[in-house]
Amino acid sequence: MHSENAAPQRLSNTLHNTPVSWASEVAEQVNDRLVALFDEKLADAQRCSPRAHELVEAVAALTMRGGKRLRPLAMYAGYRATAAPGARTDWDAVAALGASIELLQSYLLIQDDWMDDDLERRGGPSTHAALSRQYNDVKLGASLAMLAGDVAMGFAIELLHTTRFPARRMHEAFATYMNVHFEVVCGQQLDLLGHEDVALVHNLKTGSYTVRGPITLGALLGNASDHQLQAIAPFAGPLGLAFQLRDDLLGTFGDSQTTGKPTGRDLRQGKKTALVAAARARMSAAERELLDNVLGNPDAASDAVEALKYAMQRCGARLHVETELDQHLSAARSALTSSTALMPEGVAMLLELTDRMALRDR
Amino acid sequence: MHSENAAPQRLSNTLHNTPVSWASEVAEQVNDRLVALFDEKLADAQRCSPRAHELVEAVAALTMRGGKRLRPLAMYAGYRATAAPGARTDWDAVAALGASIELLQSYLLIQDDWMDDDLERRGGPSTHAALSRQYNDVKLGASLAMLAGDVAMGFAIELLHTTRFPARRMHEAFATYMNVHFEVVCGQQLDLLGHEDVALVHNLKTGSYTVRGPITLGALLGNASDHQLQAIAPFAGPLGLAFQLRDDLLGTFGDSQTTGKPTGRDLRQGKKTALVAAARARMSAAERELLDNVLGNPDAASDAVEALKYAMQRCGARLHVETELDQHLSAARSALTSSTALMPEGVAMLLELTDRMALRDR
Repeated sequence: MHSENAAPQRLSNTLHNTPVSWASEVAEQVNDRLVALFDEKLADAQRCSPRAHELVEAVAALTMRGGKRLRPLAMYAGYRATAAPGARTDWDAVAALGASIELLQSYLLIQDDWMDDDLERRGGPSTHAALSRQYNDVKLGASLAMLAGDVAMGFAIELLHTTRFPARRMHEAFATYMNVHFEVVCGQQLDLLGHEDVALVHNLKTGSYTVRGPITLGALLGNASDHQLQAIAPFAGPLGLAFQLRDDLLGTFGDSQTTGKPTGRDLRQGKKTALVAAARARMSAAERELLDNVLGNPDAASDAVEALKYAMQRCGARLHVETELDQHLSAARSALTSSTALMPEGVAMLLELTDRMALRDR
Repeated sequence: MHSENAAPQRLSNTLHNTPVSWASEVAEQVNDRLVALFDEKLADAQRCSPRAHELVEAVAALTMRGGKRLRPLAMYAGYRATAAPGARTDWDAVAALGASIELLQSYLLIQDDWMDDDLERRGGPSTHAALSRQYNDVKLGASLAMLAGDVAMGFAIELLHTTRFPARRMHEAFATYMNVHFEVVCGQQLDLLGHEDVALVHNLKTGSYTVRGPITLGALLGNASDHQLQAIAPFAGPLGLAFQLRDDLLGTFGDSQTTGKPTGRDLRQGKKTALVAAARARMSAAERELLDNVLGNPDAASDAVEALKYAMQRCGARLHVETELDQHLSAARSALTSSTALMPEGVAMLLELTDRMALRDR
């Protein structure tokens, strides 16, 4: 019994394939690849210039400090849902592509945090906040953070290029990746401009690179047939929306200890979330006044924020969003289970991931 | 005679290969590819979100408003210096790669202009300046400009991916491109931090993506042998340095009408140029006081700027930099003409390019 436990993780994963082990195996592979990349790049940086390691270290600090690796898991599940039955996992490719997706995420977070004036991320200072403090210069810190973002994006593309996609799917994989990039940037633009179509912003900003993009990239890595790619779309769409609604709920009602973000942050920042839209449609005039006083007011008192949270719950906005989330979840699950094109092993992973993404508490 | 003139440009280029025609042919091909890309992306953007076209338009405005296309010319010369004798130019690949390099440039300019607080570029407002004015919000304008930069970078990578490199050189070409990106970002970091090694900053920030990178990428597109790649390095290095010294001279002594940049800009911005380093070593105490008063002082009076320019000339700093530039030029030329590995047609183009880059007046 003891000797069984001591069997290598990778082997035990192949043998039992329990929900916990595949996810932790993927996360471990991706983390190992990231660490190897940062080691290699720190050495490159030393050769390149005497200070360049600071940019690499800024990216490494953010990337390795937590992060749930949900997107690599989505990619891996998409891969297993399309790879031929019994095919061995190409761990090099999975690790490279997963690490690439995490670095794309780091780049986007670095930029978003500066644009949104977010000072905290993953339980530590955001990149521009850390660099501004280090150099005691807000503009310099922001500029260096943008350069750190550039570095992260460059590493992401490098890793994409080293991923061995099936030859017939390579160009499609590259095009999918860059299309995800374009959509996320457009989503962020709409978000900054305060666009009123919350669902569109969500779909562009989060759905594409959190769900659709990674699953599709995984499927292309698995040499998916066109039929399989078509089967993924009606699952990934609703799951992406569910993920973002969960994000909205956590951003307002989440426990700051668990999420690593200040409580009520979305409200003080004035984010146009689905919750705010639902609340505005349901609130009394007095409650709406409270909403307008708190929303987008970074100095709003904690009491007022708590009162607003209560009002959003009382008027039914929270329940409305939770119900909508459940509907998207059901749609995603039934799209998945009604398809016969996907491999059962991968379908099971995608179902597990659905719960992880939509029912998470951070 | 008239019918000869009416022959298609591409054919006449093949027949006569005069200096003017190859360069304008490459520029035209690259411009056509850029216009086609922007048209396609504007249509994508409309499908993606109702405002995304603004980001594409911001990139298009900067990219199509002037720009000397020197980097695509360097790439093409590198290509002709290595392509098999008599091989037909793969114009699709040249146009895609050239357009990619121009978009990389647009992305870097958008970021640099914001970081350096440059309000003008290529005879018009810089991207963050235009967007800040449009939305009457400095932070929003800067954020949207960074997103426009992201879009430009994304397009650059997409075009890189559509470039048909010889299969055996594809991964090296991608790696070269991303290494150039890393070096430029590191160079910009050192520049922001006011690093004292001006030559190192120049080499990273300008040499890599202006000269070495494009010529190497062109050579890889031409399926260069390792021997040919080795022959390019001792030419590209000194040419990159000469290019940057020319940039320094133009940034201080250039005619603002011709360069499109305000006169004395480098001085008011406090750039650590080779000129400033040479001047500081040669100036009297009184002149050095003038230098310290003007350098990095955006409000310095025109009279003081003109007096400083005169002092920099009088003390021999200008002559010193001009002499150094000439030495780099000679080294580049003799490295090129002493090599037997490169194709004569391409060598002639590289020599012509050397003059264009190092003796330009804008």
